[in-house]
Amino acid sequence: MSSHHIVRDDQEPALIIANGAACQPELLGQLLEWSPLVVVLDAAMERVMELDIKVDVLLGDFDADFDPEKYQTEQYPIDIIHAPDQNKTDLEKAFDYLIERNIPAVNVVWATGKRADHTITNLTTITSYRDRLKIVLLDDHSKVFLLPKKFEKWYTANTSISLIPIGQVTGIHSSNLFYPLQNDSLKLGYRTGSSNHVTHDGIVTIEHAEGDLLLMECFD
Amino acid sequence: MSSHHIVRDDQEPALIIANGAACQPELLGQLLEWSPLVVVLDAAMERVMELDIKVDVLLGDFDADFDPEKYQTEQYPIDIIHAPDQNKTDLEKAFDYLIERNIPAVNVVWATGKRADHTITNLTTITSYRDRLKIVLLDDHSKVFLLPKKFEKWYTANTSISLIPIGQVTGIHSSNLFYPLQNDSLKLGYRTGSSNHVTHDGIVTIEHAEGDLLLMECFD
Repeated sequence: MSSHHIVRDDQEPALIIANGAACQPELLGQLLEWSPLVVVLDAAMERVMELDIKVDVLLGDFDADFDPEKYQTEQYPIDIIHAPDQNKTDLEKAFDYLIERNIPAVNVVWATGKRADHTITNLTTITSYRDRLKIVLLDDHSKVFLLPKKFEKWYTANTSISLIPIGQVTGIHSSNLFYPLQNDSLKLGYRTGSSNHVTHDGIVTIEHAEGDLLLMECFD
Repeated sequence: MSSHHIVRDDQEPALIIANGAACQPELLGQLLEWSPLVVVLDAAMERVMELDIKVDVLLGDFDADFDPEKYQTEQYPIDIIHAPDQNKTDLEKAFDYLIERNIPAVNVVWATGKRADHTITNLTTITSYRDRLKIVLLDDHSKVFLLPKKFEKWYTANTSISLIPIGQVTGIHSSNLFYPLQNDSLKLGYRTGSSNHVTHDGIVTIEHAEGDLLLMECFD
């Protein structure tokens, strides 16, 4: 076996369960199968306890009316991380925690839905972790990740692909998208590449010169 | 009665029912009480028909498997607007339609939830309608609108206020917010003013020099 086939536990994606709307149990079940490390944010723990999931880390600023210590026995062994920094969201603190543990990748669920401020903050905060942590946000209708300057992936024809610029993104080129981009610029709030789709089975290429570009694979 | 007390029908906010997740019937009911003109987007019409609401305008690009004409009798009288422009979302087309009719303000529901690409596009597209249409987006946890350069409003203490920059916003000053802003800059994805709150009962003032700043009043 060559060295790049050796996968250490910590190189599997971790799973963060955030505090937005719950997803379907099927999606959560699929992700749990592949996630060696499960991190739950703050009061989401109360909802997670109903799902019979083994949690490895509970992280949050823990309001006065939330007692994390009771999970020490119910979820033994568990790391309880009190993270009071008011300048970061609990999701950002969880990303920082994973980076500190040298975990390279994470899937995130329950990060959308409910409050619009939390949803837009969670969707866009992944841009600031470029090159530090590979983050994929998932919900029942969406899979969201940040694009590298050059992105290539095989898709089946008609897959829905939305390109969402966080701020302004310039010098965008695509191949195998129904609405092609040729040195185009996108700007959030003014011109986005939402609701594009794949032309034919095969590799889709998306390149951009400057800015933060999210790819969203969404479905109704 | 002085002239500024005379309110023409068309000066009441219209109501757009978009095609995301449905809100609680109570919120929809409150908005319908005050909305003389109800616009429904595309296939949302099927869900709206179950709610016994009188619809005035049905607008969309109408896929092959959706027949808008049957609502001509079921919702008589109704304007059916076929808007096939692939460069705009149905929500943007509805905003354009209202501007053309000289309607100055609109509330929007069902614009969030479900697909993340639609949610972020709908939340941020209101920035490009500055000075043309007063837009308020509402769901069960959120009220979202674009701030003018100087904003003043009376709030009760502890009201949750999130300031979300769409792109970069500079020269922000606030008064009566718990985390005050003093010539601060915010940038989506890097530094937002999410999860602030009002210090004491009274006027909150928020000013900014450049950029598009959304205010979100959100609650769990």
